[in-house]
Amino acid sequence: MKLLVLNGPNLNRLGKREPEIYGTETLEDVKERCVALAKEFNAEIEFKQSNHEGELIDWIHEAEDVGIDGIVFNPGAYTHTSIALKDAIASVKVPVIEVHISNIHKREEFRHKSLLAAECIGQICGLGTFGYELALRKFLQDKEGTIG
Amino acid sequence: MKLLVLNGPNLNRLGKREPEIYGTETLEDVKERCVALAKEFNAEIEFKQSNHEGELIDWIHEAEDVGIDGIVFNPGAYTHTSIALKDAIASVKVPVIEVHISNIHKREEFRHKSLLAAECIGQICGLGTFGYELALRKFLQDKEGTIG
Amino acid sequence: MKLLVLNGPNLNRLGKREPEIYGTETLEDVKERCVALAKEFNAEIEFKQSNHEGELIDWIHEAEDVGIDGIVFNPGAYTHTSIALKDAIASVKVPVIEVHISNIHKREEFRHKSLLAAECIGQICGLGTFGYELALRKFLQDKEGTIG
Amino acid sequence: MKLLVLNGPNLNRLGKREPEIYGTETLEDVKERCVALAKEFNAEIEFKQSNHEGELIDWIHEAEDVGIDGIVFNPGAYTHTSIALKDAIASVKVPVIEVHISNIHKREEFRHKSLLAAECIGQICGLGTFGYELALRKFLQDKEGTIG
Amino acid sequence: MKLLVLNGPNLNRLGKREPEIYGTETLEDVKERCVALAKEFNAEIEFKQSNHEGELIDWIHEAEDVGIDGIVFNPGAYTHTSIALKDAIASVKVPVIEVHISNIHKREEFRHKSLLAAECIGQICGLGTFGYELALRKFLQDKEGTIG
Amino acid sequence: MKLLVLNGPNLNRLGKREPEIYGTETLEDVKERCVALAKEFNAEIEFKQSNHEGELIDWIHEAEDVGIDGIVFNPGAYTHTSIALKDAIASVKVPVIEVHISNIHKREEFRHKSLLAAECIGQICGLGTFGYELALRKFLQDKEGTIG
Amino acid sequence: MKLLVLNGPNLNRLGKREPEIYGTETLEDVKERCVALAKEFNAEIEFKQSNHEGELIDWIHEAEDVGIDGIVFNPGAYTHTSIALKDAIASVKVPVIEVHISNIHKREEFRHKSLLAAECIGQICGLGTFGYELALRKFLQDKEGTIG
Amino acid sequence: MKLLVLNGPNLNRLGKREPEIYGTETLEDVKERCVALAKEFNAEIEFKQSNHEGELIDWIHEAEDVGIDGIVFNPGAYTHTSIALKDAIASVKVPVIEVHISNIHKREEFRHKSLLAAECIGQICGLGTFGYELALRKFLQDKEGTIG
Amino acid sequence: MKLLVLNGPNLNRLGKREPEIYGTETLEDVKERCVALAKEFNAEIEFKQSNHEGELIDWIHEAEDVGIDGIVFNPGAYTHTSIALKDAIASVKVPVIEVHISNIHKREEFRHKSLLAAECIGQICGLGTFGYELALRKFLQDKEGTIG
Amino acid sequence: MKLLVLNGPNLNRLGKREPEIYGTETLEDVKERCVALAKEFNAEIEFKQSNHEGELIDWIHEAEDVGIDGIVFNPGAYTHTSIALKDAIASVKVPVIEVHISNIHKREEFRHKSLLAAECIGQICGLGTFGYELALRKFLQDKEGTIG
Amino acid sequence: MKLLVLNGPNLNRLGKREPEIYGTETLEDVKERCVALAKEFNAEIEFKQSNHEGELIDWIHEAEDVGIDGIVFNPGAYTHTSIALKDAIASVKVPVIEVHISNIHKREEFRHKSLLAAECIGQICGLGTFGYELALRKFLQDKEGTIG
Amino acid sequence: MKLLVLNGPNLNRLGKREPEIYGTETLEDVKERCVALAKEFNAEIEFKQSNHEGELIDWIHEAEDVGIDGIVFNPGAYTHTSIALKDAIASVKVPVIEVHISNIHKREEFRHKSLLAAECIGQICGLGTFGYELALRKFLQDKEGTIG
Repeated sequence: MKLLVLNGPNLNRLGKREPEIYGTETLEDVKERCVALAKEFNAEIEFKQSNHEGELIDWIHEAEDVGIDGIVFNPGAYTHTSIALKDAIASVKVPVIEVHISNIHKREEFRHKSLLAAECIGQICGLGTFGYELALRKFLQDKEGTIG
Repeated sequence: MKLLVLNGPNLNRLGKREPEIYGTETLEDVKERCVALAKEFNAEIEFKQSNHEGELIDWIHEAEDVGIDGIVFNPGAYTHTSIALKDAIASVKVPVIEVHISNIHKREEFRHKSLLAAECIGQICGLGTFGYELALRKFLQDKEGTIG
Repeated sequence: MKLLVLNGPNLNRLGKREPEIYGTETLEDVKERCVALAKEFNAEIEFKQSNHEGELIDWIHEAEDVGIDGIVFNPGAYTHTSIALKDAIASVKVPVIEVHISNIHKREEFRHKSLLAAECIGQICGLGTFGYELALRKFLQDKEGTIG
Repeated sequence: MKLLVLNGPNLNRLGKREPEIYGTETLEDVKERCVALAKEFNAEIEFKQSNHEGELIDWIHEAEDVGIDGIVFNPGAYTHTSIALKDAIASVKVPVIEVHISNIHKREEFRHKSLLAAECIGQICGLGTFGYELALRKFLQDKEGTIG
Repeated sequence: MKLLVLNGPNLNRLGKREPEIYGTETLEDVKERCVALAKEFNAEIEFKQSNHEGELIDWIHEAEDVGIDGIVFNPGAYTHTSIALKDAIASVKVPVIEVHISNIHKREEFRHKSLLAAECIGQICGLGTFGYELALRKFLQDKEGTIG
Repeated sequence: MKLLVLNGPNLNRLGKREPEIYGTETLEDVKERCVALAKEFNAEIEFKQSNHEGELIDWIHEAEDVGIDGIVFNPGAYTHTSIALKDAIASVKVPVIEVHISNIHKREEFRHKSLLAAECIGQICGLGTFGYELALRKFLQDKEGTIG
Repeated sequence: MKLLVLNGPNLNRLGKREPEIYGTETLEDVKERCVALAKEFNAEIEFKQSNHEGELIDWIHEAEDVGIDGIVFNPGAYTHTSIALKDAIASVKVPVIEVHISNIHKREEFRHKSLLAAECIGQICGLGTFGYELALRKFLQDKEGTIG
Repeated sequence: MKLLVLNGPNLNRLGKREPEIYGTETLEDVKERCVALAKEFNAEIEFKQSNHEGELIDWIHEAEDVGIDGIVFNPGAYTHTSIALKDAIASVKVPVIEVHISNIHKREEFRHKSLLAAECIGQICGLGTFGYELALRKFLQDKEGTIG
Repeated sequence: MKLLVLNGPNLNRLGKREPEIYGTETLEDVKERCVALAKEFNAEIEFKQSNHEGELIDWIHEAEDVGIDGIVFNPGAYTHTSIALKDAIASVKVPVIEVHISNIHKREEFRHKSLLAAECIGQICGLGTFGYELALRKFLQDKEGTIG
Repeated sequence: MKLLVLNGPNLNRLGKREPEIYGTETLEDVKERCVALAKEFNAEIEFKQSNHEGELIDWIHEAEDVGIDGIVFNPGAYTHTSIALKDAIASVKVPVIEVHISNIHKREEFRHKSLLAAECIGQICGLGTFGYELALRKFLQDKEGTIG
Repeated sequence: MKLLVLNGPNLNRLGKREPEIYGTETLEDVKERCVALAKEFNAEIEFKQSNHEGELIDWIHEAEDVGIDGIVFNPGAYTHTSIALKDAIASVKVPVIEVHISNIHKREEFRHKSLLAAECIGQICGLGTFGYELALRKFLQDKEGTIG
Repeated sequence: MKLLVLNGPNLNRLGKREPEIYGTETLEDVKERCVALAKEFNAEIEFKQSNHEGELIDWIHEAEDVGIDGIVFNPGAYTHTSIALKDAIASVKVPVIEVHISNIHKREEFRHKSLLAAECIGQICGLGTFGYELALRKFLQDKEGTIG
C-alpha cells in the first residue's frame, strides 16, 4: 500500500506561523510520525508540500498514474477558494481524506466552508496533527471495510 | 478513563434507515466496537441514544457531574438546529468531538453547517462508523498530547 | 387498514387559541370526524397529539413497527424548524401527508416554508379541518391508484 | 353549483411530458374524472387549459361574470412568476384552490414558492391528479361549512 | 400631438377590484378625464387596456410606427416581472411615463421595485387616477422644456 | 391654503452640482415657479432648504403647528437613510408628497429605495423640476377629490 | 397576584457555566430574590426550569389554566430557534416578559434576534439577574397602568 | 432534416432597436442567411418570431408534433423570466440550442442568468447574428456525432 | 448621583404622535415621573430631547465631562441608523441603558435591530414609559451590585 | 492568420475524467480536429494546456506580443474563480472566445457564473468539443464581419 | 495653495476615546503636524471638526466657494452611513482624499465599506495619524502630476 | 533598512493595459522612483513582479528569512480572491502595506473588498503610482513612531 500526504500553501511555515493556532511542531515532525505509523502497517508514505495551486493539481493527477492507494490532503487556504482542486480530485479515482489541524469552525466564517469536502470521502478537523494519523488509519486499518 | 458516546435523533434506526447512506450496521454493532476498542486502553464506555433534545442536554450536564473524561457525540439532525445543545456543550468542561457517519458535505446544503462544531474540539465526518473509533482514539491515545 | 393522525405542538389548544385563525372546533371534534370517515371505509384511526418533538419522532418510528399504513401529520410549528422530524419521516417507509388547517401562505414569511414537505408524499393547507378528511381519503379511497 | 377547473401552461402535454413526474394520464382523463365526481353532487364543471397568461387572466375575470362558484386552478409554471395572475385572483370574489399534481417541494428550489397561494383559500400538492377531486370536494361537500 | 394611455393586466376590473385600494372609479371614467384634459391642449388621446403581455409589447412597437408623441403607461403587475416590456420600451424612441394609482411603496415588498422605471423618463405613484392627468401634463404642458 | 416646499441636503447646489443629472436651473428658479403656480389658485407657498436632518424634522413638526395643508418634500439623500424623517412624517397629520428631480431608478442601486415613500401619499420622480409643480397641483387642484 | 418565573435550557448551570458571561449567582439565588420582592407586594411566585422545549410549552399552557397573572420568561437558547414556544405564548392570554441576563447584542449574531419577543409585551436584557426583578416590578407595580 | 429558428419578444425590432448593441441587420436578413446555410446541407428552415410567451410555448409543442429535428431559440427577455418556456422545452424531445446576439454577460446583472439554458443542449452568446449559423451547424454538421 | 435621561428624534411629539403605539402621555409627564423616582434615592436627573444627531453626540460627550453617573437613552429612530451615536457611547466611560417605549420587535423589520445596543450595558423595550423608571432603578438601586 | 487554443486546469485529463460528462475524446483528438479545420482556411493553430493560473496569464500576455489574431479559451474551473485571468484578457487587445465542452448551466450553481465572459467577445457551452470548432469558425469565417 | 482638513463625529475625543485603537495623540497634535508640513510647501491649512452631518456638508460647499485646493477628510462614522455627504463631495469640484487612522478592515464588518470612497480620489487607512500627512503630500508634492 | 516592493498579476502590463485606468507609466518607471526615494533615506529596495500566486507566497516567506523590514504590496486581482496570500502575510512578522494605483471603490463591486487588508497594517488606493512612494514613506519616515 502506497499513500500520499499532500500539504497546501503556507504549511511549510508550520511551527513558525501563528503557534497559538497551529502549535510548534514542524511539518517535518508530522512527516516522521506519519512514516512511523505507516511502517506499522507495512505501507509506504510520500509526503509533499507546495504553495502553488497548479502544482498540487499536477501531483493529484500523478498520484493516479503512479498507483497511489489513498491521499491525506491538507489543502490549507485553497480549501475555501479552489474549484480547480475540487475538479482535480473528481478527475482521479484515488480516494482522498481532507484534514485540517485547527478546528476551522472556530475561526473566520469563510473558513467554515470547504469547496473540496464533497469530492473527498470525509473530513477531519480540529484534532491537531494527530488528525493526519487518524486519516491514515482509515486507509491502513479500515481498508477491508466498505467506505460509505 | 471514562468516555461517553452520545447519539442523537433517529440514530436508533441505524441499519434500517436509508442503508444506501448509513449502511446496514446497527447502533448496537457500533457500541460493541467502541467498547472493544476502549477495553484495549483499559477505558470504560457509556453508550446512549435519545430522540429528545432536552434529554441530550440533561446527559451532557450529567457527564460533567459523574466525571466523564470525553464525549464522542453524533448529534444527528440537532447538529444543524440546536443552539441549546451548543450552549450545553459550552456549559461543561468535558471535551467533545462531533462525529457524523456520512459525509455531510455531499448531502443537502443545510447539513453542511454545524451549530455545535465551534464548541467541540473537532469534527470527523464521512468515515463511516469507523469515525467513532477514530474519535475515541483521540481521547485514548493522544491524551498525553496537547489538544490544539 | 390502520391510519395514524398525528398532531404537533399547541394543537391541544385548538378551539381556545386564536379562533380567528383556527376556528372554534376542538381537536376532539376533529378526531370524531376522522374516525367517522374511516369507519365508512372499514379503516381504523389512531389519533395523537404532543408538544414534544422527541415524542413525535418516537411515534413515527413506532408507526412503522406496529404496521400503520399511512400518517396524516399536522406538525404545527415544528414544520418550519425540525430537521429531526424530517429525518424521522425519511427513516420509515410509511407514507405521510402533511396537513395545515390555516393557509400558511397567508401568514408570516417563516411559515411559508416546510422542512418536512419534501419527505411527505404531499401537502394540504388552508382547507380548514376538512383538510384532515381529504388527506385520509387519499389513503382510503385512492389506495389502489399509484402515488405520484 | 358551477365550478371551473383551470389549467395553465404545458398541462396540455400531460401524459406525454416527463411521465416519471406527471404519470401517463392525459388532461382529458382528468376532465372525465372531475365531471363524474361533480355529477354525484349535481354540479357542473367547466374545464379549460391555456398556455397564455393573459388568457388565464381573462378567464378568471369571466368566471365571476358568469357566476362560477369556485375555481380549482393548476397554474403550472405561472405559479412561480405571475403577479398578474395573483392580482387577477384578488380582483374577483370567486374562491380559488391551487392544485399541483406533483409535490413541488421535492423539485427545484424555485418551484417551492407560490406567488398565488396567498390569494387562494388553500393549496393541495403531491397527491397526483386525485388532488383535483379533493379540491372539488372542498367546494361540493364542505360548502355548508365555513372556509377558514 | 397624439398621446397613448396604456393599461396593463387587471385594470379592466378597476372600480370592482379591491376598492379600498383602487377606489370606485372605472377605467372608462379615467379615459373620459384624460380625453377632456387633452382637448384643452388640442391633443388627441388613444386609450387601451390588455391583460396580455405580448399585446402590450405589440402596442408599444406600433406607437412608434403611428407617430405617438408620448405614452402614459400603467403596467399593473407586469411592472415587477416583465423584462420583455422593459426591452420594448427601450426599443422605441417614444418617451414613456410610468403611472400607478396606489402608492406601491405602501404595499407588498415585491411591488416596491419596478423593472420598467429605468427605461421610462419618470414615475408617478400614489396620487390616485389624478396621476394619469399629471403625467399627461408633463407631455402637454412641459413639452417646450427639456426632459431630463 | 398654505403649502410648504421642503428641500433636503445639497439641493442648495442645484444648478452648480452635476448639471448633466439636475440641469442648470437653481433652487431660486424653482421657488419662483412654485409661487407663481400657487398664486393662480390663491394659495401661499413657504419654500425652505436645509442640509441638517434635525432641522428638517423640526420644520415638519412646525408645519403641523402653523397649519400647513400639504408638504412637497424633496428629501435628497436622506430619502435613503433617514428613519428619523420617516417617523417625523408619520408623527404629523399633514399630507406629504415626495418629489425627485432625476429618475432615481436610472441611478445607483441604493437610490432606488425610499425609506420615506410609505409614509407619504405618493411619489413623483424623473419629471425634472416640473415635478414640484405637478405635486403642488395634487394639493391645489385635486383637493376636493379623495386621496387614494 | 400569582406570577410564574420560567427558565429555559442550561439555566440550571447558572453559576457554574461561563461565569465571565453569567456571573457566579445560582438559579436558586435568583429565585430567593424574586420571592422576596413578590412578598413586598403580597404576590406569589412559582419558579421553574427545564431543558425540554415540550415541557416549557406544557407549562405555558398550564399557566393559563391555573390563573397565573404574568410570566417572566428567560427562554435561553430557545429564544432564537423555537417557533413552537412563540406559538405557545400566542395561544394563551397571560402576558409574558422576556428576560436575558447577558446583553444578547454583545454576543454572537444569532443571539441578537428573538423569535419570541414579538409575542411578549416586552424584553429586558443585559441588566444581569436584576432584570428578573425589574420584569416582576412591571407586573407588581405598574399593574394599574396600561400596558402599551 | 427540418429545423426551426424561433425568436422571442422585441426581436422584430432588430436593426431599429439599440443598434449599438444589436447592429443594423434586420431579422429578415438573419432569416436569409439561415436559409442559405441550411440549403448547403439540404435541410429546411422554419423561421418565426412572436412577442407572446404563450405563442412561443404553443410553437415549441407543435415543433414536436410536426417532426422538427432541432430548434435554434433566441428567447429574448423571456430567457430571464419564463419558467413556462423552460417547462415547454422540457416537455418536448426536440433538442434546443439557446442563442443570444449580444454578450449577455456584458449587460445588466439580471441578463446573466438564463432560466432556459439548463433545458437546452447548449448556449451561444455574443457572436452576433453569426451565432444563429453556428447553432444550425451543430445540428447540420455534427448530427452524426454524439451530443454531450 | 447624577443621571441623564436622553431622548432622540420625534420624542417631542410624544402624546400627539401615533397614540395607538405610544399612548397619550407627553414627554413632560415622563420627566416628572423620572424626577420623582430619583428624588426617592436622593439622585438628580437631567432630562433632554433633540432631533439632531450631532447634538445628541455632543451631549453624550458632555455627560462624561460633567460627571454624569449613568445615561438612560431612548434614541428613537437613530437606534437603527447611527453608527456615529454608537461610537459616541463607546467614546465615553459613562454606562448607558437603551430604552424603547414600544416593543420594537412587534413593529417593522428594520426596527428590530439596534446599532447601539452592543455599546450599552442593556436594553429595555415594550414596557411603556415605565421602562424609563426601570432603567433608572438599575442605576439607583443595583449600583452596589455588579453589572454583568 | 494565427490562432491560439488555450486550455485550463484538468483538461489534460479529458477522456479519462468523468466520461459521462466530458466524453472519451482526449485533448490530443481535439487538437487534431482544430488543426484540420484551420488548415482549410490557411490558418495556423497553437494549442496549449496548463494547470497553473499564472502560466495561463503569461501565455495570454505573450499571445499579444507574438501577434496572435484570436484566442479560443476553455478556462476550466478558473472560469468561476480567477479575476486575475479576467484582468489578463482585459490587458490584451487579442479577442477571446470562451468555450465549455459541457453545458455549465446543467451543473452545480457555482458553475453557472463566469467571471471571464464579460471580457470575452462571447461564449459557447454545451456543444461538446465541436464548440472549439464553432469558436474557431467565428475567427476564420466571420472575420470580415463586425464583432459584437 | 489652501487645503482643508475636515474631521467627522467623535474625532474631538481623539486621545481620550479607546486609546488601544486610536492612540493617545489628540486632534490638536494632529493639527500641529499638518500645519508644520504645509508650511514646508508654503501652503495653508484650515483644520475643522464637527459632530453634525449637516455642518460637514455646509463646510464642503463652502470649501469650493472660498477656493480650497484639496480636502483631507476623516469622516468618522459617517463614512458608512451618509449618502448626503457622498452627494456633497460630488456637488463640488474640490478633490477629496478620505483618511482613517485605524485599519477599518480589521474592525467590524460594517466599517469595511465606505459610501464616500467612490467620490473621493483615493483613500488611506491604517497608517495612524501619519495618514493625514501622506494625504496632504499627495496635494502638496504630486500636484504637478496627473491624478488617475 | 531593506524594503520589498511586490507586484501581483498583470502589473507587468502597466503602461500598455487600459491606460485610461492605470496611466502610461511602466512598472520600470515606478521602480526607479521607489529606488530614488529609498536612496534619500539610505534604504535599499527590492522590486519584484509575478503572475503566479504560489510565487508571491514563496517571496513573502523569503522576505522574513532574508530580513526585509517592510513590504509594499500591490496584489492586483489576487487582492479579492486569495486567502492563501492572506495566510502568507499572517505567517510572517514583516509588516505589509497594501497599495492600489486606481481607486478600487470607483470600479466593479467585487474590487471593493480586499481579503488581504485585515492582515496588512494599512491600505492606500487611488493615489496613482505616487501611492507606492507614500507607502514607502510610512516605513522610511515614520519608523520611529508607533504603528497602530
